[in-house]
Amino acid sequence: MDQTVLKMRLSAVRRKMRSKGLDCLIVTAVENVTFTTGFLGDDSWAVITPRSVILVTDSRYGEQAQSECVGCRIVERTGPIEKATADIIARTKSVKAIGAEDSCSVAVFKRIRKSVLPRPKAVGGIVESVRQMKDPSEVRAIQKAGRIAWQALDHTLRRLKAGMTESQAAGLLDYQIRRSGSQNSFDTIVAFGANGSRNHHQPGGKKLRKNDTILIDFGAKVDGYCSDTTRSFAFGKPTRFFEKVYYAVLDAQQAAIKMVRPGVAIAEVDAVAREVISSRGLPVYKHGTGHGLGLQVHEAPILAKKAKGKLTAGQVITIEPGIYIPGKLGVRIEDDILVTPTGHRILTKDNRFNFSKQKMPVIKSR
Amino acid sequence: MDQTVLKMRLSAVRRKMRSKGLDCLIVTAVENVTFTTGFLGDDSWAVITPRSVILVTDSRYGEQAQSECVGCRIVERTGPIEKATADIIARTKSVKAIGAEDSCSVAVFKRIRKSVLPRPKAVGGIVESVRQMKDPSEVRAIQKAGRIAWQALDHTLRRLKAGMTESQAAGLLDYQIRRSGSQNSFDTIVAFGANGSRNHHQPGGKKLRKNDTILIDFGAKVDGYCSDTTRSFAFGKPTRFFEKVYYAVLDAQQAAIKMVRPGVAIAEVDAVAREVISSRGLPVYKHGTGHGLGLQVHEAPILAKKAKGKLTAGQVITIEPGIYIPGKLGVRIEDDILVTPTGHRILTKDNRFNFSKQKMPVIKSR
Repeated sequence: MDQTVLKMRLSAVRRKMRSKGLDCLIVTAVENVTFTTGFLGDDSWAVITPRSVILVTDSRYGEQAQSECVGCRIVERTGPIEKATADIIARTKSVKAIGAEDSCSVAVFKRIRKSVLPRPKAVGGIVESVRQMKDPSEVRAIQKAGRIAWQALDHTLRRLKAGMTESQAAGLLDYQIRRSGSQNSFDTIVAFGANGSRNHHQPGGKKLRKNDTILIDFGAKVDGYCSDTTRSFAFGKPTRFFEKVYYAVLDAQQAAIKMVRPGVAIAEVDAVAREVISSRGLPVYKHGTGHGLGLQVHEAPILAKKAKGKLTAGQVITIEPGIYIPGKLGVRIEDDILVTPTGHRILTKDNRFNFSKQKMPVIKSR
Repeated sequence: MDQTVLKMRLSAVRRKMRSKGLDCLIVTAVENVTFTTGFLGDDSWAVITPRSVILVTDSRYGEQAQSECVGCRIVERTGPIEKATADIIARTKSVKAIGAEDSCSVAVFKRIRKSVLPRPKAVGGIVESVRQMKDPSEVRAIQKAGRIAWQALDHTLRRLKAGMTESQAAGLLDYQIRRSGSQNSFDTIVAFGANGSRNHHQPGGKKLRKNDTILIDFGAKVDGYCSDTTRSFAFGKPTRFFEKVYYAVLDAQQAAIKMVRPGVAIAEVDAVAREVISSRGLPVYKHGTGHGLGLQVHEAPILAKKAKGKLTAGQVITIEPGIYIPGKLGVRIEDDILVTPTGHRILTKDNRFNFSKQKMPVIKSR
């Protein structure tokens, strides 16, 4: 990671710390540790003070930390992590008010409170709020992850055959992601036919049949940054009903994406997508319309009915409306969108996977 | 899941609850929810009272919960999960003392404390302690996961070629696991040559060269249950140094496995493995000698230097000593062991991957 980028991140984090009256922050969430130190391993914490950042890790990660961290001190602990952290803070002069991230477990927080002096208080959202606004290197990583994902999807669709199971299709896709030197950003969903209405379906032994519908929700990871996209297809001849459902979802997605710009109310973007679907007499999805994405595949902001707040330049969000008919089919379309100073940019645009009334999402059945 | 099995689990959990003075437990950890309800999804909680178990989930998981849960009530919430939980408990008469799992985040626990009456206290290890002792169906699932893993390794090793990257090899392995209808139990580690000394190495672009060493640490998952095994190989002609290191690790592992039986001190098993390695003048590994495994790939008990407690029949543990020479190589050997009433059983025994002085772990280089 670039030293300048890291400095900018840390000064934003320190501003937030000061606004909460803190001069020391114990960072326990793995993605927040990555964000503030560059370290990509786990089981490690960061301690941020006005002048320094210290990575608290162990012998397993010594070599990795040396190569990944820039401009931060590395401590290889031998005892418990909360004791090592307490020692570091004790040696840092004039620390008065310490925060520890409230995303850690109650049990871990208790151990921190027992070891660290002065007693830390639980604080939330400091690093997360800075993480919402992505810098160009983060946007590039998400975009690259998206490209790897589409490449893998293209490869997989060319090999789909009647009789293949959901598991096999997911395996093919994941293998391609791995071959590109990337990893999955979450467990790939491949759902055939009626399984598409199960929103968190795990790919199983169901076999692909001619004229089934297909739903694939998946993502890749580059330098820790996630992509998250969904496409839905007809395998063979699409039914009229599939077409109706598909274009309702596509129109809902496009209407919502069109709204994306700094200052627009998040709940409004959510509402626009739902309105398109309900206006066609089709059932409105119960999940959110989208979510932020970056080092985590789900992060702030959440695009939901009751969401407060407005979109801000630098956020990267998904827009993913869907229609689910239990026992019949599910269709969802999802892309990753950057909020730019003047509007938005679709990071996952790809001619092969952008469909329209002129270009149906159909895979020739074989 | 079998109704009888579930009943036995719940009565053990309720005994633990009573011993802590609780008549209601809010289960938030995903594996504990699976263990007490059969539900394999996430984002859901369970509420356990002396007479009932309720799964608190949402619309995305309705269908899945109906098919996976036996003998437990399912509530599909529409509002926040802590509010739905509070409502359920309010409708349950005579609840006096509530525990909430301390593995949830501080932020979530705060929300629980705000909503639920009477105010819950944070408790740890109740379901986890019951989970340590595996019933026959759990042992079978781990064993099956192990078999799927070996099958995938066999397939991968047959296709290894000089010039292939770590990423590609990991991808091949993961694809095979997926093709078997299984998933990875954690991110596969494939490390060539000197990368083997990085204990949590992520497979990357490093290419396999003739006479490299190979370390592969991986697992599969069946019905939520994990396997976790490691093998180390020479690709081509093994050096004398590799042989020396390899047999030190193998002897350490076998000495530790030999010790496994109910009543033996965990720290003693750990010590035996380390002694074999130090007696050969080789550097002793800094990680633990093993860990429990089941619904989580790392669970209680932890086999480490300072571990307290004794082994108990029904536990399934890994034994995984290693030797790491930075810049040179790493060798680790790991199997999954059931503690039986009279001794132990190696769940991951497989003739293809059990090596000895007569049968070297060598892959023909091509």
